[in-house]
Formats: sequence, C-alpha cells, structure tokens
Amino acid sequence: MNSPIVGKAVPQVTALEKIQGRAIYTGDLKQPGMLHAKVLRGPYPHARIVRIDTSQAVALPGVKAVVTGADTPTRLWGVAHKQQRILATGKVRFAGEEVAAVAAISEDIARDALDLIEIEYEELPALLDPARALEAEAPQVHDGHDNRVKEIRIARGDVEAGFAAADLVHEATYELHSQYPGYMEPMATLASVDGNGRLTVWTSTQSVFLARARLAEALDRPVSSIRVIQAMVGGGFGGKIVEERSSLIAAFLATRVNRPVRLVNNRLEDFQSGCFSVPCRLWLKMGMTKDGTITAKDVRILANSGAYAGLAPEVMLVTAMRSDNMHRLENVRSAADLVYTNTMPRGAFRGFGGTQMAFALNSHLSVMADKLGLDPFEVHRRNAIRAGETSVHGWQFGSTGLRECLDQVQAGIGWEAKRRRPKDTGVRQRGLGMAAAMHVSGNRTLGNWDGSTVVLRVNEDGRAFIASGESDMGQGANTMMAQICADELGIPLSHVTVLPPDTDTSPFALGSLASRVTINGGKAVLQAAQQAKTQILDAASGLLGCPADDLEIDQGVVRSRTKSNATAALPQVCRYHVFRHGGEGILVRATYDPPTKMMDADHYGNIAPGYSFAAQAVEVEVDTETGQVTLLNSCLADDCGKAINPMAVHGQTNGAAVQAIGWALYEHLQFEDGRLANGNFADYTMPTADSVPHLQASIVESNEPNGPLGAKGASETAILPGAPAIANAIEDAIGVRITELPITPEKILAGLRAKREGGHA
Amino acid sequence: MNSPIVGKAVPQVTALEKIQGRAIYTGDLKQPGMLHAKVLRGPYPHARIVRIDTSQAVALPGVKAVVTGADTPTRLWGVAHKQQRILATGKVRFAGEEVAAVAAISEDIARDALDLIEIEYEELPALLDPARALEAEAPQVHDGHDNRVKEIRIARGDVEAGFAAADLVHEATYELHSQYPGYMEPMATLASVDGNGRLTVWTSTQSVFLARARLAEALDRPVSSIRVIQAMVGGGFGGKIVEERSSLIAAFLATRVNRPVRLVNNRLEDFQSGCFSVPCRLWLKMGMTKDGTITAKDVRILANSGAYAGLAPEVMLVTAMRSDNMHRLENVRSAADLVYTNTMPRGAFRGFGGTQMAFALNSHLSVMADKLGLDPFEVHRRNAIRAGETSVHGWQFGSTGLRECLDQVQAGIGWEAKRRRPKDTGVRQRGLGMAAAMHVSGNRTLGNWDGSTVVLRVNEDGRAFIASGESDMGQGANTMMAQICADELGIPLSHVTVLPPDTDTSPFALGSLASRVTINGGKAVLQAAQQAKTQILDAASGLLGCPADDLEIDQGVVRSRTKSNATAALPQVCRYHVFRHGGEGILVRATYDPPTKMMDADHYGNIAPGYSFAAQAVEVEVDTETGQVTLLNSCLADDCGKAINPMAVHGQTNGAAVQAIGWALYEHLQFEDGRLANGNFADYTMPTADSVPHLQASIVESNEPNGPLGAKGASETAILPGAPAIANAIEDAIGVRITELPITPEKILAGLRAKREGGHA
Repeated sequence: MNSPIVGKAVPQVTALEKIQGRAIYTGDLKQPGMLHAKVLRGPYPHARIVRIDTSQAVALPGVKAVVTGADTPTRLWGVAHKQQRILATGKVRFAGEEVAAVAAISEDIARDALDLIEIEYEELPALLDPARALEAEAPQVHDGHDNRVKEIRIARGDVEAGFAAADLVHEATYELHSQYPGYMEPMATLASVDGNGRLTVWTSTQSVFLARARLAEALDRPVSSIRVIQAMVGGGFGGKIVEERSSLIAAFLATRVNRPVRLVNNRLEDFQSGCFSVPCRLWLKMGMTKDGTITAKDVRILANSGAYAGLAPEVMLVTAMRSDNMHRLENVRSAADLVYTNTMPRGAFRGFGGTQMAFALNSHLSVMADKLGLDPFEVHRRNAIRAGETSVHGWQFGSTGLRECLDQVQAGIGWEAKRRRPKDTGVRQRGLGMAAAMHVSGNRTLGNWDGSTVVLRVNEDGRAFIASGESDMGQGANTMMAQICADELGIPLSHVTVLPPDTDTSPFALGSLASRVTINGGKAVLQAAQQAKTQILDAASGLLGCPADDLEIDQGVVRSRTKSNATAALPQVCRYHVFRHGGEGILVRATYDPPTKMMDADHYGNIAPGYSFAAQAVEVEVDTETGQVTLLNSCLADDCGKAINPMAVHGQTNGAAVQAIGWALYEHLQFEDGRLANGNFADYTMPTADSVPHLQASIVESNEPNGPLGAKGASETAILPGAPAIANAIEDAIGVRITELPITPEKILAGLRAKREGGHA
Repeated sequence: MNSPIVGKAVPQVTALEKIQGRAIYTGDLKQPGMLHAKVLRGPYPHARIVRIDTSQAVALPGVKAVVTGADTPTRLWGVAHKQQRILATGKVRFAGEEVAAVAAISEDIARDALDLIEIEYEELPALLDPARALEAEAPQVHDGHDNRVKEIRIARGDVEAGFAAADLVHEATYELHSQYPGYMEPMATLASVDGNGRLTVWTSTQSVFLARARLAEALDRPVSSIRVIQAMVGGGFGGKIVEERSSLIAAFLATRVNRPVRLVNNRLEDFQSGCFSVPCRLWLKMGMTKDGTITAKDVRILANSGAYAGLAPEVMLVTAMRSDNMHRLENVRSAADLVYTNTMPRGAFRGFGGTQMAFALNSHLSVMADKLGLDPFEVHRRNAIRAGETSVHGWQFGSTGLRECLDQVQAGIGWEAKRRRPKDTGVRQRGLGMAAAMHVSGNRTLGNWDGSTVVLRVNEDGRAFIASGESDMGQGANTMMAQICADELGIPLSHVTVLPPDTDTSPFALGSLASRVTINGGKAVLQAAQQAKTQILDAASGLLGCPADDLEIDQGVVRSRTKSNATAALPQVCRYHVFRHGGEGILVRATYDPPTKMMDADHYGNIAPGYSFAAQAVEVEVDTETGQVTLLNSCLADDCGKAINPMAVHGQTNGAAVQAIGWALYEHLQFEDGRLANGNFADYTMPTADSVPHLQASIVESNEPNGPLGAKGASETAILPGAPAIANAIEDAIGVRITELPITPEKILAGLRAKREGGHA
C-alpha cells in the first residue's frame, strides 16, 4: 500500500488546540453551581484518628459539605488488595493520607474550612524503613497483617550450576529510589450527578474504563451508573491509571451535595496524593564466561509499596523477571519481597519496574565486561534474544530490534573512537556508558484480556470518526490512530477525528498502560478501517458498476484501477451507502485481542503481542572538584517495530531520556519524620533545558508481525537504559561506580574520596 | 415471550429529572466565556434593505459581535429549495425575518445593541393574500420567480365517471388556518467552537443529524466539522425538524467570535421565528352512493408557504392525497398549488398536512351522511380499507385498526343513545360529532431511506445502553426504546439507559418525524437487543456448559430451562464476555430499513412500513346566545399497532386531542399589516384546563407485522380527527356548518343568524 501518512512525521492532531491554549483540561471545566473541593491530609505517617470535629468547618459560610472517612462507603477498594476507603478511617498510614474533604463555593473558602476541622490524633510508631518491615517487632501498617504485601519466587534452570560454569561471578546491591511522575497537569476531576442520579466524572486519566471501575468500587455503585469522560490529559506516566485517589473524593462529594464538584490539585497537593514509582533495594549476582555469555543470574529484591498495595506487586514482578527475557538466559532466580511502610503508596510509573532492574543489570554488565576485557555492546549482542525465539519465561519474540538498537547507538555516539581516546586527566573528565533494555507492548494481565475495540464511523462527507477507550495522555495515541485510519481509507489526516474516551459512548478498552495502545488499539483501528473500506468499495462498486476489487480510494476519491473514467468522490459513495434500500451509515466495530498467553502461577507465559527494545549510549563529563555530572551526548535507539509517526516516537524517546536523567541525577524525594519535605518544583529538581544535551533519537523498525503495519509500543522502553548508561559513563570517566540513585555530587565526591583512599570502588 | 415491561404503563424514563426540575434543557446550559445572542427582525412584510449601520451597536460596551446578512456565508440553505442565507440579505420577505444578530456578554446588552442598529428600509408592496399570489400583477416574493412554489396534480381512476355513478355529490370550500406549535420550550441553542475549529451545537431539535446537515449547508462547512447534541427537548410538534433558523444564527455567531454563544427565544421571539402549520383553502367535491360508498373525490388546494418553501411542499402533498388511502377509493383527483406570500414561513406540524384534509373530508362525510340518512360511522366502515389491501396510491396495509377505532369511540361516547335523544331546544344545545383519519408510521421520502441504526452496549454489570439518533422530544421515545430493550434482554427497565442523540457518537438516523421512531427506531432496538442476547447466551453457554438455546434471561439472571442449578448472574456473564481470549465488550449494531417503496413521479408508492388510524367522537354544548362552544366529552381511539407504553400512548392521544381543540376553537394568529399581532400566550389562546373535558383515550392494537412487537406510530394520528369531530358536533347541536377555522363565537353567532335568516347553512 502506498502510505502517504503512516510513517510520516506529522504534528499531533491535538497540537493546534494545545498551542493556542484552547485545549480543555479538566481544570478548565466549569459548570453552573459548581463547587470547589479541597482535601485535608493527615500530618503523621502513622496515627490513630481519635476524634474529628467538623462543626466549625460546616458552619463557615459558603461551605456546602464536609466529609470524613465515616461518611464514605464501607466497601473497600483497591487494585488487587481491597484495603482503602475513600477517606482514611480509624487511622492514617502515611503522612498526607486523605482524612477529610470540603466542598465550598470557592477554593479559598474550601481551604479555609480545612483549617477549621479539628482532628485529634494519637501518634503511633511509624515504619519508615522497608528494611525493618519484616522484623518481628516492626509496627504493623495494617493491623492484624504482617507487612509483607507480596512474595515472588521464580527459579528456572540450575542457577548454581550456572555460576559454577562462569569465568566471572559478580554481585552487588543497588538502591533504586522513587520518582514523582512530574506530568505538566496535576490531577483534576469534575464530578456531577444528573437528575437521574447518574454520576458523570471528567477526569485526567489514562483509562476511562479503569477509572469507572475504581469509582464504582469505591462509591459502591454499578458501573453503568457512572460515566467517565477523559478531558485533555497533560501527561500521566503511570500515575493516572488505577491508583489515583483524588477523583474518588471529588466524585463522592458530588454524590453528597448533588452539585458539580471540581477538585484540582495544586503541585504540592499533587505531590502529596500522587503515584510514585516503587523504590527497592536490589541484590544481583551474575555469572559470565570469558566470551561474555551470561551463565546465571540471581536476584533478591526488597521493594517498598508504601502504605497500600496498588499496582506495586505487579511492578515488583516486572523488576524481578522482565529483563531476563531480553537475553538467552537459562538459569535465573528471583526472590522478591514487597513490604508495606508508613510512606506514600507507590506503584505504576513509566517503565513499570523495568527501570529498577535495568539499572542493576546494565551496571553489572558494564562492570563484568570491564573485568573480562569485553565491550558491553558485545556482551549484549552475544546474549541478545532473536526473533523466533522463546525466552526463559516463555515469551515469544516475533520481532527484536535489540541488535540494531545497539548498532545504532554505538555508531551514533562514536563509541569506538571515543573509547580509544586517552583518559582525561584534568578536573573535568569525560566518560562513555551504554545500556540496553526491553519492555512489553501490551500485557495480558487483567482478567485474561488485553484486547481493544474500536468503533469507526464514516460520515456522509467521507470523513471518519474513531471511538476508542484507549486514551491519549499527550503521547500521541490519537495521532497514531488517525494516521492508520487515514492511510487505510485513503483520506487526508485532517479528515479523521478521534473522539475523547467516554465510558458511555466509547467501546470498552483498557486504556493507556503497558505500552499497549499502538499495538492493540492501533491494530483494532486498522481492522475497523479495513472493514469500513470494504463497505465503501462495495457501495462504490454498485454505484460505478465496477467490481469492488478493481477499486481503490486515493485522496478521498474512489477510482477504478482499470477504467480511468470510473471515479466517485467519497462523499458521494458515503451518501449512497446510507440513502438507498437497505442502506445505513457506515459504522463498524473491530476488536483485536492479541494471541498472547497469560502467565501461569509460576510466572510462565507469553504476555505481550510484541516486545520493544532500546539501547542508549551517553557521554558525560564529571567535574571532579564539584561532583557535578554533565551530559555531553546521548544517543538513544528505540525499537518501535514501525514508527507510525516518527515525530511522536522521537518525542517519546527524548522525553524518556530526560525523565531518566532526572531519576539518575536530580530528582530526589526528601522526607523529614516521614513527611515529604520537597513537594514542589523548586526543591524537587526535575531536569531543565540546561541539564539536557542534544538528544539523538534513532528509530529501529523491526516490523512486529502482530502489530499494525509492523508497529509496537514506543512510550516506555526508552526510559529504561538512561540511568545505567549514565552510571556506566561516570565510572568510565572517573572510575567510581555508583550503585545508589540519584547520583548526586555528594556521592561522586564521596566515591572519588573512597577511590583515592582505598583504590577503585 | 413473557413481557413484563412492554405493554406496561410505566412513567417515562425522563420523568424523574423533569419533575425534579433537574432536566437540562439547552437554555440551562452555561459555558465559561459564554455570550448571549439576540436577533433583530425586519418590521415590514416586504422591504428592500437600503442601508445597515451597526457602528453604534458594535461600540456598545459588552457587545462582542454584530452580524448582518452580508457577513453570512453566501451558500443558500433550504430543505429542497435552496433560497435562504442565515440572515436576510437585500430584502426582507416577511415581517419578523432575521436581519441582524448580536452576541454580547449579557442578554440585556445584546437587546440594547439591537436598538442601536440603524437600518434603512424601502418598503415594497407586500403579497399577504395567497389568493392573489398567482395573479399576474402580484408582488413577487422572490425576484425573478413567480410565486408558485409547487404544483401537484394527481389523478387516479375516472373521477367524472365516479361522480356520475354517485347518488349524492357534495362540494364545499374549507379555510384551514395556521397553528403555532406551542411547545413548552421555546427554541434554544448553545454553540461553541473548540480549539480545533470544530463546532459543537447543543440545540432543541427533533433530529440531530438533520440539524447537522442544515448547519453544514448554511454555514458552508463539512458535516464532520459540526457536532450536534440534543439537550432535553420540551416539545417539537414538527417545528424543530429542518426549517428552524435560530440555531443557524447562534452557530454562525459562535464561529465569528470563537466563544460559546447561547440564543434562547423568549415566547414572542419564538412566535416570530417559529415554524407554523400550512394554511390552505381547500375545495372538496365528493360523490357517494345511497349506501355510503364513496365513488369519487376531487380536491383543489391553494396553500400558503409563506416567504420560503421549507417542508411546505411535502406538507401540501400530504393534504392532497394521504386521506385517500384510508378508504377503498378508486377515483380521486387532486390539484394543489402552493404559493409564496410575504408572511412567515410555514411547514411541518404534527399531522403534517393531514389535519387540513381530515377537516374537510370528515366535515364532508358528515354532511353527506346526514343527507343520505346514514350514520357517519357506517360511512367510514363501509369505505374503510382493510389489512392486506393496497390503496389507490399504492399503499399496502399490513394492519388497519380503523374499524376498531370506530367501534371503540362510537361505544365510548354513547353514540347510539345520545343520537336518539331529543334535540335540545334551550340556550345551550348539545350535539355529537365524529371523525376518523389516518397517518403514516415512517415515510420513505428522504433520499430513498427511512432506516434507523441503533448501537447497543451491555456493560460488565449487565446493564444496557442504547445509542440512537432518534430523539425523544417529550413523546416518550426513550422510554419506548428502553422498554423494548429491557424486555428482550430480560433486565429491569432501570437497567437501560438511552443516551442523548449526539452526531459524534450516535449512529446515523433521521430523528423524530413522520411518526417513524417507534416503528423504525424501535425495530432497530429490538434487532440490536436480539443480537446482544444471542451474544450473552453464547457466552453463558460456554460458562455454564449448556447449549445456548436451552438458556434464557430472566430478571438479570441467565438460567437453563432444563437444569435448575445452571444459572449465572448477568454481570458474571458480561464480564466473561470481555475477560477471556477473544473477548470483547458487548457492543452490537442493528439497522432496520423498512421494506417500503418511495413514491414515483406520479406519487405512487408504499411509503411507510405501517399506517396508523384514529377515530374520535365528541359531544359539545353550544351556547346559542354567546356562541361559546364547550366540549362535554371526547373519546379518541388510536390504532398504534401495539402500545409499548400505554401511559405514553394515552399522553400522546390526550395531548393531540387538546392541540386539536386549540386549532378548532381557540388558537388564531392575528396579523396587522402583515405583522403578527398576538405572539404571546395571553392573546394567542391555547386551550387551558377549563377548555378540556374529561378525555377518554382508548387504544387499538392492530398488530403491525412490520413493527417491533406489533407497534407503529402513536404521536400524530390522534390530532387529525379532533377539529372535524367538533365541527360536526356543532352542526349536530345547532344546525350550523362551519367550514372556516377557528370556530369562533362570532362565526357561531353569524351562522345562527344566517340560519334564522336563510334556512340551513
């Protein structure tokens, strides 16, 4: 097929309204009679709520409702562990836990009312250190349950024999910290109950259907009594999937006051109620032969779930096993424990546990390659899994672009030449590092389904509308779907509209998570467009008197391939499709449920229709006097199968690279007595333009057979290699191995001191 | 099938929000930054616009836009005749024509700004009397065109031979006046342009898709660039189909100011811009044998379209021929002319031209029956067409309830006994009258399609959602669709939600017109529900291990007919339908396009899948001193095929009866120099409770084979017999035949005077 649109770098279909400032985010929505909500949070990491007196708050003019945990439905909600009510009841389990909420006629009054709520707490001993969680005398986060959330034990092959066969065995412990998603748009929700008692919720979400399910559970009402509509979303990064809590509070308040209620987080509130990545301590032992073949891998993980479970168990499972699948491993073992602490809940974050293991694995590989005199690129290549192979955990690879990613970044950064240059000896020392990683595109994990349904309509003017529950959170999902549709139908991109996800009108889908939207949603769009095209050509066949298979659509015109005068404009054909005996509007539905296999109890399966790869090489300069690390170059290759929109893939790649820089070097949650102390962008320092080098983003098109036109996910993989590539480059520069993130100047200087005092770290 | 819901009198599904005052009509909608629009109307029935100066209006603080005809797109819009721009340009053709519009920050400022617009008119000779329209020297309403809009000539059989074979030939001329639809909710529109330039229009409409087409034409933009959403509609009666103009003005203003614009008519404005029924002068000649058989019918019509064509040509066609199909006629002839005048445009109105002819025909039948010593019920029965027969114009009848309607109202009113009682001789004299009529249920007229598509979703909680472009304008369409769906799926009525029509998300449909929604939309719902049920039972079959044909759904539970322990709650089955390999949400589409045949050039065809009948008998009391007519009793039978919701059918029947009383006795548009003089409810006197007797509404279920569960339309037929039944009763009471509506006390007294002076009128 001639593809004038797929594969072309086009601005996102949402670009115009965004650059004009006219895109409507949830916080822009207003309704007649709308109230504003604010939330009161517990100040202690662990405390019993002795008494709450809301009478003064209720009496404040302009206050329409004050609710506490006692008012909320008693049904518990949660992803797998049903353990939360909409507001804390009995006790608070982390500093910042939501205790009460107010709806008032203005934000100011709501905020004032919070100050009038009197709460007496009895402070309890807090468990802040996950390393203490499993000790017998540790405080219990959830009364009557020990602090272990989840225990994962995976073993394949013979790990001990693998170590015995190795020429080099290396072990190390890594400390991987938690990251705030840092989306531009803090969480916001507008909830309204209509005259029939149905609840409509506009919210910033990655999945309207999962949001609806969460609301139904927490509010204890049928899903059909709730309508969730996605307004424009300003980023999610995993934080707006299923663990998000403020939408529940806004919706609950709306049901209490029978008026629209809007709850918009400011940045501090978003830090306090947001979803953070799962921190962990990770011990890794690997064996390798002289030629770089990995003979065994053994992992122990202690991960911190925070006060509630959420998606953290799933995240830890990814940390424990996903990276095993990128190599031809036989002997692997993981022992992972997830524990509760009296800290904020942690869970889904771009990369979904992959970053944690990618850091350890690539750090390890770099160290071992050095010791064996090997190039780390060669080590990855030697072990890389190939298309057609099945990994140690049962994953089946239709496409793998790992080797091409390695080739591209190795060449792109100028690896060979730069590695040969003499070491810097001055104050500023340069170094090179690389890393590689993999991710899923889709994940058959939720109820044994990972499908996506698309409803496609072609109007009487020959223009198309896509209704999908998959959501665009800024990553370009709508543009991707529009491109696939436009190409298949032979119409301009501007003639396709992707409707906002709306649980009342969009077909059921899981939403934007697990890099599943392009491969599953995009495939559904392709199949729907193919159906619509068939209907159009059949109608045109009747109109033009040509067989349908002689017809094609090009630039909005149906034409015969053989008879030059047999043409009909698409609007004419589409009108004819309706206005005739037995006619109807063109409205088709297609569902793509990938041919994957859910993991069994032993975590064996083939969970995704495609697997994406990425490799990155960076050059850093370390100031040995200040400990400052400066990135000089970054070359990041993303195996996205096929770049439906190279501009969007580059955007994802570069954005991921920057987010990885932040995690590696700058972003650091600071706590005082269990309370977050730097919940703002002045003190929680995300990378700004001056921290970011020119980013080279290159694309590997490995042509995934399960994907639409060969495409797979391109949103998450690219975040994985950044931090270890930087750590490896730092060691290359100054001979200091940092195993605990973030890599602050203090750690660099401490490492340099230790190296001077005791040889190589 | 056990039908616990279909056939049961249930409150409308929209009742709760309406009685609470929480239903959201267009005039209740507000948006941030919303402007208010007001419209300036020309004061002359015919005038050249010499000069418009808007500078003072533009300068008024708070005014954001002032537009005149020159600003509007040059593309002409109209139903069949493309002859209007959004605002008048060059000249005004009726008093009240829209000349300019203002958008301002408040309604008051917008209204003030209208006063600041200076327009110089050159008054032109106005054509106000349709009888003069075809005279050579008549003013031309449209320059360069004569005043004839449409000419219809239909002849079947041998009309002259029919008259020759008659024992009685009677001719008379009737004057049928125009009626204002009088819906509770005046027209209202909110229009808004989004950041992508798409236009969203919330409006009070009977058809979102026809509204979209009209907007696209008038604004000269693709249909796909426009989204029309139906808010709650407070009545339409034909006035909110395709001739409505204020929505165009609101939408045009929104495109000019790039801000939301709301235009809400007050009652006077609604009278000035509303859609009125088509007035006509109707000459009727009929021949009848002694036994009551109609041998020939000859009709001449001169109808007044007002200044523009709109749907008036279609309305006049109905007047000219529809009633012919209720009887076994062979010799019929119609000559109908529709003319322009410098008066407000006329067009669609409940009954769609049927009321005009029903008045003449039933008046005629009553007179002729009297003269032949026959009972008018018997005359109708003798001539009534029967199921299985084809009418003179090719209409094919699957069901006819005419005879049952006649039987019911004859018995209901106590016809026999009351006719035998002695005539009153005092001041107040009672009389009995009857009439019968027919209507279509559906109409294959628009582009050879009369179909309806429904998308039905069943959620994971086993509750259903219907997306349809057919609209509820208060008549109960949503309740009808919900009942059919609930019954077929075996779920409670409260578990079905009918979504508001929205051109972006509803499947294409024509909307609420031609009494087509129950028969076509309802059939599509039934078919969609059958499909969904099949999918549910197939899934349950897999879950329960029973063959699907052994399963049924009852009260939300799927159960085996043979194995008592094989049951599954619907939510369980619906979840299983999604969450499995190859699963998906239940989302089906069904289109019903009825097996009808469009009229040919000679107006022969079979335009509707079903035809509805009604008969009415009334008892009146006439005060011979004041001329006051009081209804004592009314008995109206409606053949709706099958009453899906008897409460809703009764509502339609009674509402129609009252609207007919208004047309017959009270409502009267008054003009002064071509200007409407009584555009308010104080002076345009619609019937109030004290004018309405106890209304007996009875239902005839003729079981239409094309209809869903036997149903056909029940919204319009009942308005047809009211006026002639009253006229016939008045003659029965006082011996005065009134042939010109409305039947005012002045006409009664004049008739009584004429009778005293010159014998029977």
